Amino acid sequence: MQEYRAPLRDMAFVVKELLGLSRISALPGFEEASDDLFDAIQEECARFAEAVMSPLNRAGDREGARLDEGQVVTAAGFRAAYQQFVAGGWNGLTCPVEYGGQGLPNLMGAPAEEMWHAANMAFTLCPLLTRGAVEAIHTAGSPVLRQRFLPAMVSGRWTGTMNLTEPQAGSDLAALRTRAVPEGDHYRITGQKIFITYGDQDFTENIVHLVLARLPDAPPGVKGISLFVVPKFLVQEDGTLGARNDVRTVSLEHKLGIHGSPTCVLAFGDAGGAEGYLLGEAHHGLELMFIMMNAARFSVGIQGLAIAERAYQGALQYARERIQGVPVGMAERAPIQHHPDVKRMLATLKARIEACRALGYHAGEMLDRAHAEPDAAQRARAQARSDLLTPIVKGFCTEMGVWAANEALQVYGGMGYIEETGAAQYLRDARITTIYEGTTAIQANDLVGRKLLRDGGAMVADLCRDVKETLAALPPGEGAGLARMLEAAERASACLLATATAHPAQVFAAAAPYLQLMGWLTSGWLMARSAMVATAALAAGPADAAFYRAKLATARFYLEQGGAACTAACMAIVEGATALEAMDVASF
Amino acid sequence: MQEYRAPLRDMAFVVKELLGLSRISALPGFEEASDDLFDAIQEECARFAEAVMSPLNRAGDREGARLDEGQVVTAAGFRAAYQQFVAGGWNGLTCPVEYGGQGLPNLMGAPAEEMWHAANMAFTLCPLLTRGAVEAIHTAGSPVLRQRFLPAMVSGRWTGTMNLTEPQAGSDLAALRTRAVPEGDHYRITGQKIFITYGDQDFTENIVHLVLARLPDAPPGVKGISLFVVPKFLVQEDGTLGARNDVRTVSLEHKLGIHGSPTCVLAFGDAGGAEGYLLGEAHHGLELMFIMMNAARFSVGIQGLAIAERAYQGALQYARERIQGVPVGMAERAPIQHHPDVKRMLATLKARIEACRALGYHAGEMLDRAHAEPDAAQRARAQARSDLLTPIVKGFCTEMGVWAANEALQVYGGMGYIEETGAAQYLRDARITTIYEGTTAIQANDLVGRKLLRDGGAMVADLCRDVKETLAALPPGEGAGLARMLEAAERASACLLATATAHPAQVFAAAAPYLQLMGWLTSGWLMARSAMVATAALAAGPADAAFYRAKLATARFYLEQGGAACTAACMAIVEGATALEAMDVASF
Repeated sequence: MQEYRAPLRDMAFVVKELLGLSRISALPGFEEASDDLFDAIQEECARFAEAVMSPLNRAGDREGARLDEGQVVTAAGFRAAYQQFVAGGWNGLTCPVEYGGQGLPNLMGAPAEEMWHAANMAFTLCPLLTRGAVEAIHTAGSPVLRQRFLPAMVSGRWTGTMNLTEPQAGSDLAALRTRAVPEGDHYRITGQKIFITYGDQDFTENIVHLVLARLPDAPPGVKGISLFVVPKFLVQEDGTLGARNDVRTVSLEHKLGIHGSPTCVLAFGDAGGAEGYLLGEAHHGLELMFIMMNAARFSVGIQGLAIAERAYQGALQYARERIQGVPVGMAERAPIQHHPDVKRMLATLKARIEACRALGYHAGEMLDRAHAEPDAAQRARAQARSDLLTPIVKGFCTEMGVWAANEALQVYGGMGYIEETGAAQYLRDARITTIYEGTTAIQANDLVGRKLLRDGGAMVADLCRDVKETLAALPPGEGAGLARMLEAAERASACLLATATAHPAQVFAAAAPYLQLMGWLTSGWLMARSAMVATAALAAGPADAAFYRAKLATARFYLEQGGAACTAACMAIVEGATALEAMDVASF
Repeated sequence: MQEYRAPLRDMAFVVKELLGLSRISALPGFEEASDDLFDAIQEECARFAEAVMSPLNRAGDREGARLDEGQVVTAAGFRAAYQQFVAGGWNGLTCPVEYGGQGLPNLMGAPAEEMWHAANMAFTLCPLLTRGAVEAIHTAGSPVLRQRFLPAMVSGRWTGTMNLTEPQAGSDLAALRTRAVPEGDHYRITGQKIFITYGDQDFTENIVHLVLARLPDAPPGVKGISLFVVPKFLVQEDGTLGARNDVRTVSLEHKLGIHGSPTCVLAFGDAGGAEGYLLGEAHHGLELMFIMMNAARFSVGIQGLAIAERAYQGALQYARERIQGVPVGMAERAPIQHHPDVKRMLATLKARIEACRALGYHAGEMLDRAHAEPDAAQRARAQARSDLLTPIVKGFCTEMGVWAANEALQVYGGMGYIEETGAAQYLRDARITTIYEGTTAIQANDLVGRKLLRDGGAMVADLCRDVKETLAALPPGEGAGLARMLEAAERASACLLATATAHPAQVFAAAAPYLQLMGWLTSGWLMARSAMVATAALAAGPADAAFYRAKLATARFYLEQGGAACTAACMAIVEGATALEAMDVASF
């Protein structure tokens, strides 16, 4: 089991040199977010992730969480690590200052989050969910609800959860049955929720569940869903904890991976109904849930990147130590990293990871701009870009993460299949990321339905304009791969827009390949910009030349690979649609 | 956990209609292999796989094999199932008649093997290894060794193993250290072997290990390796078992999957040396081991196909039952198979599985021809094609199998991540297939180094000629995908041949994508031929029209997808090579 080392140099490159933290810290509210503060936080965060969180990753997998007389018991060490996490102030890094957070931009939060997930994904799911709940309560909560819950959740003294899924209602939330009946100033919630991450834990004295439910007068479908705050223990007016609420942990799921994270079945209202408080307007719970969901989708994208980085580090270390045979073109036995195919795997891992890092952090930057740009038009443009990027980051970075964990395992050969090596855990853990918070198909449907088609391709065209600007600025001979990606994206987008009315099923069947194409394009664009930054840095002087040369070579390789991948995706989208539609599911 | 249903219709299509079993049964030695016998065996085999082997698959995973005071204990039910397997005569289906086998062609053995692996891959590894050992002893054993070991191994009364790997010698067998010292008419073997599949079990009273070791006068490297027969119990002249040999099971590996299959560390010679018998010539053990290995590679390719089929069946069943939301273009809530993206996943699974079935069985057909064609030139051509196909079948069908198990899990959404569903086991089991019996990179190096380059591209050109013949026979407008695949294959092959001397590292870095390209081409060619067979059948009459129409639609979809995939692979091979070489592993 290898240790984790935070890739601080590349993180700093993306945040400071590629995306320009200084431009974010020029925005109102983010003045604190200086390059110096970033460096200090990064160093401290890396220390914590490497020394405290990472060593528990394997134990979390082996031991898992268990249910002991209705109470979840997490793996040894998790509880203490959580307390250290909270004591270090990490929980509130990007949370509102008014409730005790540090209010830092997502561009600074993203690398921290990457480190945590890479170090211990099962552990980090807990603060991930809490942050989403904080955002929802902060957005829509009454002053009373905010004051009652946010300070404890921002500090991490209490945690938060998302309660959406029911056995019959997964991707289809319209089917949910949990009911909420008004009673005085609150509601009584009754129903069963499944797949609740950290639905119970032994970290904190209280847990704040955000629960989707239907009011008695709710219209059918997704327009009749409301969102409720349901604490595990009721909170009294003086802030102290009162009675245990009527919510019970029924069981834990036995999962392929993330064993350290308790995935709960929760029963609300076995004893008459759990006390809950309406968040936002009645029947408008789904919009609100999407606030949490979008934050969580961004975070899960970062998670895909993180697990890829962790898996890559393990494979690289093994490839540097394991000696096997004489590599082609060499005279003596050497570490397997010198075998051409192993080098190809490692190079592809490196390139895709760096590209997804740029993409993920860029999405964080856009969240910040959408929040803080003083000019309304700029703010709206950033919001639109952020909306476009969310499904891409979630869908593309997590598919990359699963691919990377699988490819990294392959580097080890037979040793990769042995659990003690650790590579298998990364694959098992990574595998959930393309499923939860909306499967890749759900992301792709969002991208095509609500992003591409709804505005007639305007957001996508805006992105393509940015890509063209970069293309025009690239030195001659450097733009072939990016040009190919752009051409494929424009051709595929035009095809989907043209077909949407006549053949909607064809368009949505092409959504997943289209999402991958757009992921390559966006990340490829950022890698092309990275190459320009590296070229300028190399021209400016010898400092860090090895890093910049490597970045340049990596970007070139990525753009070649991306050009080929996008061409194939475009072919499959544009030409493959009728062949797919001609297949009859009844004959499968 | 869904049941397994053998896909008998498609199997019969490939064996009888596409590849033509009647042409194989026209070859000397295969006269028995009539279509009628095939039908009878298929039916019986399916019954056994579905009713006996499949129900144990989950228990094998949950319970696994364990080591109890030096003796492996397999999961409950495995031992009894093995005895039924042997009693049914299944073990010797394709084994030599003179030692009690049925001597049937591989074209008939391949579907049986697919069923067994699909039903219970961990179980079926045991007869897989035995068959390889039978082939090695049959090829190179003295009359005494053959008579002593083969009848019991062919019947399945004893099993066989392959002992290659040592901790320092995985892909690099030149590094192996196990020693064999002559003593009278036998040898004393000393050393440690790892990753020994069914290195011990409680199925049979004896186990016959084939062990690679070095003689005292062995030259260094792979040219100094000899192969020995080392039984667990010595066999006396009258055939009864004698003393326990000096081989000990040290431990079992804790693996990601195939828990039902005991993967052993074996210690030979703790008490002075295990008694072993030289197989074939001294120092020529590796060539001989490759006989076993090639048989095993073919079987593992079939395994990739098998696990894909099993995973697909589970996903399809779930997609037919699970109702979630209103699919695009429909008016009411419906099973998720009607959602365009789910349909895309299922269609792609179906197409790739059918294509790999055609490819895998075709490789079996070529093994039969290489063995039995009466004309020497025809036999040599079949042998060359078989040599070319072995790495392709192993590399392409197993990568497809891992992809399929992963994609099938995705169809379930969150339920796929829960172990009880069963989809996760298929992914965990499938994951070994791209590693053992030579990783995909090893297959790719074999394909490029020993197949493409060694004869200057002659074998590949011969295959391309066959593809062109099919292309010429396709109706107008049907050949675009296959033509694209062929063009990509010819362009990539020419590029690798032209670059080999000047840039060998570039060529071997492209080997894995090249193998995938050749897999698409070969399977695409067979799918194009399938389309022609289906078209002819539809023209001939209404019998089975739904099947043939589905086959035609599936082939068209596969050829579209394959054209895109091959184009991208060719781009990456031809244009991406220098960008990859420019990356420096020291900077990773």
